[in-house]
Amino acid sequence: MENNNNKITMEKIVSLARRRGYIFPSSEIYGGLSSCWDYGPLGVEIKRNVKNAWWQAMIHNRDDMVGLDTSIIMHPKVWEASGHVSGFSDPMVDCMDCKQRFRADHLTTENCPNCGGKLTQPRQFNLMFKTFIGPVEDQASIAYLRPETAQGIFVNFANVLNTTRKKLPFGIGQIGKSFRNEITTGNFIFRSREFEQMEIEFFVKPGEDETWFKYWLEERLNWFSSIGIKKENLKLRQHRKDELAHYAKDCYDIEYLFPMGWSELEGIANRADFDLKQHAHHSGNDLTFFDEQAKEHIVPFVIEPSSGVDRTVLAVLCDAYCEEPDKDEIRTVLKLHPSIAPYKVAVLPLSRKEPVVNVAHEVHSVLRKSFPTAYDDAQSIGRRYRRQDEIGTPYCVTIDFDTLEDNSVTVRDRDSMRQLRMPIDVLCQSIAAKLSGELFEVLPPGGKHWLGF
Amino acid sequence: MENNNNKITMEKIVSLARRRGYIFPSSEIYGGLSSCWDYGPLGVEIKRNVKNAWWQAMIHNRDDMVGLDTSIIMHPKVWEASGHVSGFSDPMVDCMDCKQRFRADHLTTENCPNCGGKLTQPRQFNLMFKTFIGPVEDQASIAYLRPETAQGIFVNFANVLNTTRKKLPFGIGQIGKSFRNEITTGNFIFRSREFEQMEIEFFVKPGEDETWFKYWLEERLNWFSSIGIKKENLKLRQHRKDELAHYAKDCYDIEYLFPMGWSELEGIANRADFDLKQHAHHSGNDLTFFDEQAKEHIVPFVIEPSSGVDRTVLAVLCDAYCEEPDKDEIRTVLKLHPSIAPYKVAVLPLSRKEPVVNVAHEVHSVLRKSFPTAYDDAQSIGRRYRRQDEIGTPYCVTIDFDTLEDNSVTVRDRDSMRQLRMPIDVLCQSIAAKLSGELFEVLPPGGKHWLGF
Repeated sequence: MENNNNKITMEKIVSLARRRGYIFPSSEIYGGLSSCWDYGPLGVEIKRNVKNAWWQAMIHNRDDMVGLDTSIIMHPKVWEASGHVSGFSDPMVDCMDCKQRFRADHLTTENCPNCGGKLTQPRQFNLMFKTFIGPVEDQASIAYLRPETAQGIFVNFANVLNTTRKKLPFGIGQIGKSFRNEITTGNFIFRSREFEQMEIEFFVKPGEDETWFKYWLEERLNWFSSIGIKKENLKLRQHRKDELAHYAKDCYDIEYLFPMGWSELEGIANRADFDLKQHAHHSGNDLTFFDEQAKEHIVPFVIEPSSGVDRTVLAVLCDAYCEEPDKDEIRTVLKLHPSIAPYKVAVLPLSRKEPVVNVAHEVHSVLRKSFPTAYDDAQSIGRRYRRQDEIGTPYCVTIDFDTLEDNSVTVRDRDSMRQLRMPIDVLCQSIAAKLSGELFEVLPPGGKHWLGF
Repeated sequence: MENNNNKITMEKIVSLARRRGYIFPSSEIYGGLSSCWDYGPLGVEIKRNVKNAWWQAMIHNRDDMVGLDTSIIMHPKVWEASGHVSGFSDPMVDCMDCKQRFRADHLTTENCPNCGGKLTQPRQFNLMFKTFIGPVEDQASIAYLRPETAQGIFVNFANVLNTTRKKLPFGIGQIGKSFRNEITTGNFIFRSREFEQMEIEFFVKPGEDETWFKYWLEERLNWFSSIGIKKENLKLRQHRKDELAHYAKDCYDIEYLFPMGWSELEGIANRADFDLKQHAHHSGNDLTFFDEQAKEHIVPFVIEPSSGVDRTVLAVLCDAYCEEPDKDEIRTVLKLHPSIAPYKVAVLPLSRKEPVVNVAHEVHSVLRKSFPTAYDDAQSIGRRYRRQDEIGTPYCVTIDFDTLEDNSVTVRDRDSMRQLRMPIDVLCQSIAAKLSGELFEVLPPGGKHWLGF
C-alpha cells in the first residue's frame, strides 16, 4: 500500500502545504473547522491550473462539449426527482449512554466504540445540507445545498439543446462547489464537507453507450497523465454488482495511489436514461432528443465522468512530492508538471542593490508577460533554490554581477538541478520552449543547445 | 435615467441571454427558483473571461497582490467577530391579517401594501443562510454560508504574512460564491441570493490609507474600462455620512448606468483597522504586522475594493447591447470587448459538402489552437452572421468555393460589418493582431492592410 517513489506520508504533504501557503485549515485562528480547508496563495494557483487544464481539454478543445455554471441552491423538487431526498443517506446509530452518534456501517461491534454503551437501532440521516430561503423557517421554504453538480446539467438539458442545437453524441461539463454533510471526513482534502467537482454528462444514443463508456475511461485516464500524474499510480477499478447504484449499468473508479492507499479520484458511470427520465416524469417536461434520421424522439443514455478538484490537487501534490539526497542533505522538491506549477519561473538577483536589481526587475517584467513569475531576493541563493524546489517552480533565473558584463543569466532546472548560462535575449523563448515541451523555431543559429539543459 | 446609446430595457437583455444560452432561470423545468440563475454555454464563458481578466490584472500582473480561495462554510465565531451575527439584518414587519412579510425600511405607509391590514412592530431578520454541520440540528452545530468572501481573507492574514513574507502595502484577492437571504431580490442577475464576488483587501500603513484609497478608486474604474465598459456609463458616488458603516472612514460606489438606472457595480471602502482588530480580539491571535524600520507592531488599515461578478457580467452585456438599423431590418449586436467575448472567431463554410467543408475544418482546427472558435454551418450565411452578432463574436471567417482556388477567405468585422478577403496563411496572425489591439510584426511584406478592416 505504499507509494512507489518514496515513503510519502500524508503528514509530509500537509506540512509542506501548510508551510508554503498551499493549503491552510479553514478558520484556523478560531481553532479550525473540522475538515474544511482554505487554499492559500500557491494553492489557489494550482487549483486554478487544474480547473483550467480540465476546461481546456474537456470543453474548449472539443466540438462535442459545452460548459455550464449552475446555481448551488436549486429547487427542492430537483432533489426529489434525483432520488437524493429519499435515498442520499447514511445509517446512523446513537449511543444511549454517551449520546455520541456513529455510522452503523462503520461499526465492527454492537456496542459504542467510545464508552461501550448500548446503541439505538440505525436511522437514516440525509447527507444534504439543509437551509431555508426567505425569513420563515418552515417546510415550504426548505432548500438544499447541492450534493453534486450533475443535476444542474440534467435540468438544463433542454435549454442547452435549444440554444446550441447540438446533436448526439454531445456532452455538458461543469465545475463547481458541492456540499455533503459527511459524518466521516478526513485524509486532508480527500474528503471534506465542502468540495469542488468537475463533472461531465455525455449524452449518447442508446446502444452506443458501451462504446462511449470505454472511450471515456481511456480519455479520462489520459487527462490525468497529461497533467503529470504518473501512469503507475493510476488504475481502473470496476464496481462490483453490489456496489452499483440501481440505475447504473456499469461504473469504474479511476483510483490513485494516495499515501493512505488506492482511493477514488474519479468515478465514471453509465447512468443509462435514469436521470433524464426522472426529471421528465417529475417536471412534466419533454427531455427527449429528436433524431432526424430515425424520425423519432429518444431519451439519450448518459456517461458521467465525475471528478473531484480537491482530490486531483491532492493527487498532483502527492505525485510531485520527492525527497532526494543532495550532498549531505535531503532535498524536498515538488516535481509538478509545468502546466500545474503556480510559478513557471523565479527570478533571483544575487544582490539587492543597483545595478543588479535593475536588471533583475527588467527580466522579471519581461518574463511575467509570458508566464506567472516569482521574484525572490531574500536569504542565500541556496535557500532560495530550496524554496523554489519546494513550491515546484520549474526554472530559476539567477542574475549576478557577470550579467552586467555579458548580458547573460544562469538558468537552473528544478528536476536535474543542472545550470546553464544563457543570453537574456533568448531567455523567454527558451523557457517557453522548455515549458511547452516543443522545440522552438525562432532561436538564433546554434541556439538549440539552450534547450538541452 | 435611460442608457446613452439606445433604449436598452432589462427585458431585451433577459430575452437575448435566454435565447442565446447566456443565462437561464435556475431549475426552470420546475418553475424556476426565485432569483437564482444558471449560466448557460455562452454565459459560463463570459463569466470565466470576466473572472480571469480580474485575476490577471489584480493578482498576476502585480507584485503587491496574492490570491486566496477560502471555504464558503466557516467557523461561526468568524461571523460573531465580524459583526454579521448581531448586525447583518433587515428590519421586517408582518401583516397581522394576510401574514405577508415586508422590509420595514421599504414601506411608505404604516399599513400592509397587500391588504391594508395592520402591521407588527419591526423585528430584525438576519440575512445569513443558516445550516447545521453533522447529524444533530442544535445550537452547537449551526453554521452559516458566508455572506461575503472578505472574512476568509482577514482570518488568513497571518497565514499569508507567514508564508509569503509580504511587506506593507500588499493585498489579498479572492473570487468566490457568497449567499445572502435577501428579502428583496430582482433586476435579473443584479441582486440574487447566490452570487459571486471578486474582493480585494489591501493592507497599508495607517496614515497612508487615504492615498491608497484614492489609488484604488482610479485603478478599479480603469479596470472596468479595460474590459470594454464605456466610461460615460460609469461614475463614482461617495457614501453620505449616514450611509457609512460605523467602522468605515470612507466609501465610494462605482456605479453603472443599468437599464433600471445608476446602481452599484463595486463598493470601495476604507475599513481602517476594524476587521483585523475584531478578529485579533475574538480569536486571541496576533494579527499585527512587524514594521522592521520603525521596529514596532502595527495593525494595518485596509482598503476594500469589492465587486460583483454577476453585476459585472450584467454591465458587460448591457454595455455591449446594440440595436442598429441595417437595410430594412434592425440588427442586434453584442459589441463585447474581444477579451470578454465567448468566441473570438466563427468559421462559416458556405457549403456542407466536400471539399469546402474539409478546408473549413482545417481552418477551424488551426484557429482554435489560438482562440475559442465557433463552427457554424446551419442555415443561410445571413442568418449565421446575425447569430454571431447576437452572441458577440468579433470576427467571422467565411469559406466559399473561391477558397478552393485562391486559398483565401472572407473575414467580416462584427462592428463595422466590413469584409476583407485574406490569404489563409495570414489569417491567424491577423486576427490575433486585431484581437490584441497591437500591430503584428510578422505579417508578410505589404500585409499591413489586412489589419485595416
